[in-house]
Amino acid sequence: MLTVKDSEGNCVSEPDESMVVKVGFLKLGCIGSALLLEFMLDERAEREDIDVRVVGAGAKLGTEQAEEAARIMLEFNPQIVIVTSPNATLPGPKRAREIIKAAGLPVLVVSDSPAKKSVQELEQQGFGYIIVEADSMIGARREFLDPLEMVLFNLDVTRVLAITGALNLLTAEIDRAIESIKKGTQLSLPKIVVDRERAIKAASFSNPYSGTKAMAAYETARRVSDISVEGCFAVKEWERCTQIVSSAHEMMRQAARLADDARETEKTQDAVSRTPHYDDGSILQKRRLMEKPAKP
Amino acid sequence: MLTVKDSEGNCVSEPDESMVVKVGFLKLGCIGSALLLEFMLDERAEREDIDVRVVGAGAKLGTEQAEEAARIMLEFNPQIVIVTSPNATLPGPKRAREIIKAAGLPVLVVSDSPAKKSVQELEQQGFGYIIVEADSMIGARREFLDPLEMVLFNLDVTRVLAITGALNLLTAEIDRAIESIKKGTQLSLPKIVVDRERAIKAASFSNPYSGTKAMAAYETARRVSDISVEGCFAVKEWERCTQIVSSAHEMMRQAARLADDARETEKTQDAVSRTPHYDDGSILQKRRLMEKPAKP
Amino acid sequence: MLTVKDSEGNCVSEPDESMVVKVGFLKLGCIGSALLLEFMLDERAEREDIDVRVVGAGAKLGTEQAEEAARIMLEFNPQIVIVTSPNATLPGPKRAREIIKAAGLPVLVVSDSPAKKSVQELEQQGFGYIIVEADSMIGARREFLDPLEMVLFNLDVTRVLAITGALNLLTAEIDRAIESIKKGTQLSLPKIVVDRERAIKAASFSNPYSGTKAMAAYETARRVSDISVEGCFAVKEWERCTQIVSSAHEMMRQAARLADDARETEKTQDAVSRTPHYDDGSILQKRRLMEKPAKP
Amino acid sequence: MLTVKDSEGNCVSEPDESMVVKVGFLKLGCIGSALLLEFMLDERAEREDIDVRVVGAGAKLGTEQAEEAARIMLEFNPQIVIVTSPNATLPGPKRAREIIKAAGLPVLVVSDSPAKKSVQELEQQGFGYIIVEADSMIGARREFLDPLEMVLFNLDVTRVLAITGALNLLTAEIDRAIESIKKGTQLSLPKIVVDRERAIKAASFSNPYSGTKAMAAYETARRVSDISVEGCFAVKEWERCTQIVSSAHEMMRQAARLADDARETEKTQDAVSRTPHYDDGSILQKRRLMEKPAKP
Amino acid sequence: MLTVKDSEGNCVSEPDESMVVKVGFLKLGCIGSALLLEFMLDERAEREDIDVRVVGAGAKLGTEQAEEAARIMLEFNPQIVIVTSPNATLPGPKRAREIIKAAGLPVLVVSDSPAKKSVQELEQQGFGYIIVEADSMIGARREFLDPLEMVLFNLDVTRVLAITGALNLLTAEIDRAIESIKKGTQLSLPKIVVDRERAIKAASFSNPYSGTKAMAAYETARRVSDISVEGCFAVKEWERCTQIVSSAHEMMRQAARLADDARETEKTQDAVSRTPHYDDGSILQKRRLMEKPAKP
Amino acid sequence: MLTVKDSEGNCVSEPDESMVVKVGFLKLGCIGSALLLEFMLDERAEREDIDVRVVGAGAKLGTEQAEEAARIMLEFNPQIVIVTSPNATLPGPKRAREIIKAAGLPVLVVSDSPAKKSVQELEQQGFGYIIVEADSMIGARREFLDPLEMVLFNLDVTRVLAITGALNLLTAEIDRAIESIKKGTQLSLPKIVVDRERAIKAASFSNPYSGTKAMAAYETARRVSDISVEGCFAVKEWERCTQIVSSAHEMMRQAARLADDARETEKTQDAVSRTPHYDDGSILQKRRLMEKPAKP
Repeated sequence: MLTVKDSEGNCVSEPDESMVVKVGFLKLGCIGSALLLEFMLDERAEREDIDVRVVGAGAKLGTEQAEEAARIMLEFNPQIVIVTSPNATLPGPKRAREIIKAAGLPVLVVSDSPAKKSVQELEQQGFGYIIVEADSMIGARREFLDPLEMVLFNLDVTRVLAITGALNLLTAEIDRAIESIKKGTQLSLPKIVVDRERAIKAASFSNPYSGTKAMAAYETARRVSDISVEGCFAVKEWERCTQIVSSAHEMMRQAARLADDARETEKTQDAVSRTPHYDDGSILQKRRLMEKPAKP
Repeated sequence: MLTVKDSEGNCVSEPDESMVVKVGFLKLGCIGSALLLEFMLDERAEREDIDVRVVGAGAKLGTEQAEEAARIMLEFNPQIVIVTSPNATLPGPKRAREIIKAAGLPVLVVSDSPAKKSVQELEQQGFGYIIVEADSMIGARREFLDPLEMVLFNLDVTRVLAITGALNLLTAEIDRAIESIKKGTQLSLPKIVVDRERAIKAASFSNPYSGTKAMAAYETARRVSDISVEGCFAVKEWERCTQIVSSAHEMMRQAARLADDARETEKTQDAVSRTPHYDDGSILQKRRLMEKPAKP
Repeated sequence: MLTVKDSEGNCVSEPDESMVVKVGFLKLGCIGSALLLEFMLDERAEREDIDVRVVGAGAKLGTEQAEEAARIMLEFNPQIVIVTSPNATLPGPKRAREIIKAAGLPVLVVSDSPAKKSVQELEQQGFGYIIVEADSMIGARREFLDPLEMVLFNLDVTRVLAITGALNLLTAEIDRAIESIKKGTQLSLPKIVVDRERAIKAASFSNPYSGTKAMAAYETARRVSDISVEGCFAVKEWERCTQIVSSAHEMMRQAARLADDARETEKTQDAVSRTPHYDDGSILQKRRLMEKPAKP
Repeated sequence: MLTVKDSEGNCVSEPDESMVVKVGFLKLGCIGSALLLEFMLDERAEREDIDVRVVGAGAKLGTEQAEEAARIMLEFNPQIVIVTSPNATLPGPKRAREIIKAAGLPVLVVSDSPAKKSVQELEQQGFGYIIVEADSMIGARREFLDPLEMVLFNLDVTRVLAITGALNLLTAEIDRAIESIKKGTQLSLPKIVVDRERAIKAASFSNPYSGTKAMAAYETARRVSDISVEGCFAVKEWERCTQIVSSAHEMMRQAARLADDARETEKTQDAVSRTPHYDDGSILQKRRLMEKPAKP
Repeated sequence: MLTVKDSEGNCVSEPDESMVVKVGFLKLGCIGSALLLEFMLDERAEREDIDVRVVGAGAKLGTEQAEEAARIMLEFNPQIVIVTSPNATLPGPKRAREIIKAAGLPVLVVSDSPAKKSVQELEQQGFGYIIVEADSMIGARREFLDPLEMVLFNLDVTRVLAITGALNLLTAEIDRAIESIKKGTQLSLPKIVVDRERAIKAASFSNPYSGTKAMAAYETARRVSDISVEGCFAVKEWERCTQIVSSAHEMMRQAARLADDARETEKTQDAVSRTPHYDDGSILQKRRLMEKPAKP
Repeated sequence: MLTVKDSEGNCVSEPDESMVVKVGFLKLGCIGSALLLEFMLDERAEREDIDVRVVGAGAKLGTEQAEEAARIMLEFNPQIVIVTSPNATLPGPKRAREIIKAAGLPVLVVSDSPAKKSVQELEQQGFGYIIVEADSMIGARREFLDPLEMVLFNLDVTRVLAITGALNLLTAEIDRAIESIKKGTQLSLPKIVVDRERAIKAASFSNPYSGTKAMAAYETARRVSDISVEGCFAVKEWERCTQIVSSAHEMMRQAARLADDARETEKTQDAVSRTPHYDDGSILQKRRLMEKPAKP
């Protein structure tokens, strides 16, 4: 039986060691959805019901790196593995999830729009998936992208995903899977394409204009891919490429600012939704800044 | 056989397979400096002279997790390991770097202000270190911090570190170490506390007001820690804590906006410094948007 | 022989009455491209080489209104008629241009993205056309759109079209046609789909970041249609419709703000391109605020 | 008997063909008040009780153009004509309204501040009038004003007029006149000078600070005329003129931004007043975004 | 017996001449806290219970100027003297307060952070004091500071002090002392160091996010001193000094903008706290803009 | 013996003790022009050629206070007295300047627009004057104005006056008078009404758009008086008064933001004009941040 501890620390729950779920994150390449995902499960590093491991191979997502990373991941003995990558149809991510699955482990694929092409295949093979439409491709041209510009783009896209609700949805689904493992119930992995309406719903805005601003930010971010893909692959002349991918980043920056407006609007009414984890992994809720979070 | 071509397709260099340096990132807990660090080495995923591996344990940085992660890291056979964590004086990060060092590998410690207490010890034991003063602690109170707020704080702090030059400096130092390994020269690990002047110098601003805005942003971000530490550890009443840590996050958000102003100011003169990696790991330079990056 | 008058009014040109070209604007419904188009030909109401007439039927663009308006237009005896409407494939706009053409007059169709379906037909029938991709559809739902919201959307979309260069391009093409009529040369009507690159080129930005911001604004504005069309036609539940069309308007407002940033960036370098008409219809140029416009 | 149709389209009203009122807009020159006025009567193009015709002569408002336009207007057989122009005391606008009046039609004059000189005359001759004080004159100097600058000024002034309530008032008065014609009651044309208090009242703000911001915007916009008149007519040296009219436009831009703040403030409380037309021309009301508009 | 007059002017109170308290302000040098302090006691110049005199010596605060100013102050026969200066430990301010005190008058010292060193001494000698931590030192380097930059810094710091509540607290304490003198009760001078929590409490914000934004602004402003002191005294090279003090001013400007955001947030809920003085010196309260202030 | 050194320590000038000019500031009531005026003469408190005394009477400017203050001022034995007040036509300010003049001292009157009525009288009586048109009246209604709102208005108006050049002009004129006294030349007091063109010229902007933005800010600020006068004196109903004076303050706040934009625009080109005083009172100049100020 489980109850909540108050802020004075009066004990109210007794987390059971045996409940600790080992969660693996296999990160291939860089997407905004994955940037802080493992920390979102345990935002204060106080959670006692999970043990997290992350393995990655940096910017590369070739088959070789993917295989090696997947093998290492298995050594951790995880109970569920989240495989994150851009374009989950590529051989690297594909090989990685197959290795994990071959070990009998449930796999949740987190990826971006190009992964929509493999939805049917993922379903048939029993993978869960969350595809985040607004997690758009970066403008990866040497004439434009340097380490700093790469960082700023990723901060902008992650801001959009965070405020508009996409990351809330991701976290909630992973938490749901963990809960299922803890309880020993049948694990039903999510199969979700996060479009603007799904995202905004997960954000749980109080003011409807916050919601429509966030929705506009999400849609703008989603459309960035069209430009960066064109600038990276379809156009030859380097001047045009540079102009196009630079405009893609300006567009993402503007989406991030609009998302920020949405959150600030919530603050003006003191109605920011907050859902902190309790130490036992359960999710609390609050809306007014000066109230304690409580179980729903 | 692999050849590198410039954007006109002229064949340029023939990277030698044997030059590939294996770089390990051991990530314990979450700091802004580490968030996108591995990707900064290879912003377009095209670099042929390094092979990167990342191992982490999520939000936790206990001794147990640190040990396990360090062991796994060694299996990758890296030639240099960057150990990132908040407060490098804690037992977990300490244990991790000792394990790596015991394997005969060079270790670069990347951490935040509390690590300054261990500078002497790090030097004596032969560790390199880069301590980023503005990488301030988050307001980790359950009444305030939820997964979304945690993400937004980290995006803000990383934005400050990126634009003000701190991340440039980190990348440059790691690149320098890699270059040294490639060339077989004596490896001299950096021993740097990144204060506001060091950061701003690395940012290479064109307009001096961009520099002073960035410096103000860096200093503001650095001071956030004073408040969040007070709000997390020194104050008892939850209402006061909540108010204090919330103000810490507002302060970081404002620092991030000021940093953003600095970069936008550079754009108004078309003088943004960009230093993309070439595929062989060398660093190119450019300042006008519509020019090609070139070797310095 | 033509020379320029200085600002003290010393006469340098003798406009020839016979050169006055009668230009007709037939406006069916409301699009941003058409809002101030007739005034753009003669921004100070001092031009002596054209005589402009406008006929419209308000918000409606049915066949009946279009026919009547076209008939009236013919009474003015124009030498060229610009027919503006949303979706030029609709029966009303189609009927209107056919009536004008049947009178032997050159017709330039100005419309928005849905008109792209009729490009082939327009070409075959000898119509000129300028289709402005970013001139996106409004969120026309009774639960959301009132007269004020309608006005604000149109101001936002027109701001995007103006600053990003689309309206410059429109004006230049109409001016070119007028010039051709004046000179009695073969009139070659424009056949242009204004995409982001064509627009930005016409804007003649000095700072490349102004250009990429404007390009991002144009693209964002262009994508608004996808949402407003969905909100107006594809979705049934009024709450979802309202949310979707409201987000379309927020997206357009954000695009307008980004366009505004682009122009302000030009101001920071005192490099705003200005192309006023001289009284004889020729186009002058200037870039620094404190210089006189001159013939190119 | 008239009832309202719900959003599912269940019919509730039977618009009577015979009720359709023909409304003419005679547009001489360019003023912000007139820019979108005909569309404000029928923001979704679904209104069944009016038929609108617009005739204009572009930027010019000379007697010749005015006469011709007025004659054409009469061919439409309108039941009421709104004559819009800057400075209604000029011969052109005067001639136009006299021609319409001579045909026995009611005329509503819409103009800007200089028209206040003719108020007595207008009243004596039985014209209705709405004079919008903040509809300030543009900075029409060739050294400054080009087509793009002209567009941006008009967008800014129209934004001020829209948000501060002036356009609401205009629309309401025209709707009232139409209603009177429909019902066959004695038509009493409005005789109104729209000052800041009348405008703001018509805007029906919820938050009083929205109202005072809007009032400040209106007043700022009203004062722009003093400068642009000076810059256009009173000063000789082109450098001074350019500086003065440029400052007039900056002032209007700032007024527009303040108006925008007013509307955004209303959004923060989800209290934007909306008054969409129903298809039968009646006016609905709503304030919360997620509610259906209803008859007052 | 005292009652309140309503806005129609119906008399309800009879201020007693004998109640007029003479309040002296001795201003040595420039601090934000003192800039408008005397006016805050009587914001509409209608207060009948106090008579104010100010004596100052401009920017200088040497012993000579302080002595002379103090002597003149005594000629006014004040009943209480507020001595304002930066760094109250300096000889000038010290001499001034000793002269006033030697005349048997109560002295309230208002100063900035360096004055904290003399708190014990002040207490022992019977002075009241209010030390405002965020009233940070200016960047007084000839290479940077000119009259205009000096003004702007002081406006920024005063804005922070005003909105965050520090000036409210100062005014309330002086009003309390005046009230005590009027009533002939034992005068207990305040002994307060205004830190961020004391300030924010005095501001009486309605929305908790206004409070946390203001707190962040206060803290940022407080930290400015660290930089300006370093730039003025610790660093030798003029280029570094200039950069450092310029960044101090950018930091203060950013703090002022954040404070402004806090107040604007209060406006969005129509919940700005206002505490006007009544003519008899009593303090009224109101929160909604459209309500009359009333006695608490 | 005292020597002045430049920042490299080179001995430069030997100020002569006998050159010290005693400058008196007699402050009656509160105007933005006077707020920091004495400090503008000596922005770093290092000037050796002047000795400043300030005497004031707080918010009141009645005859009694003015007389007393003037008498005290004479005890200081100043060589020139600047009398600052709103509306210099009032009996208090008039009496004060007459007393000073009767003592044979030169008087410079600094006041706001209502003082323009007394220009002729001031000239005839030999007073110098600087009347600052944009130094507009505050919204002094008890239902609106409290100490904090009073402070914020004054900060806004002073920011406008500072950035737009009005305060530069004031300082330069007083410096010129001091120089004349130092040199023993004939003192010719300024007789200036500071309108927008005079102000902007004194600001010495580099970018012409900075100038036109500043000019717009000045003009907006100037027009605030029309509203606040109406709200304070012409209107009876307290609700209307409150709305009107609140809009006056919003208008001033917006003017201040526009002025701020002007200065930020100068920063984007690293072209901020700075004119620091040298220790001997001479005025240095610089424009690039990273250059030393030099004698012109």
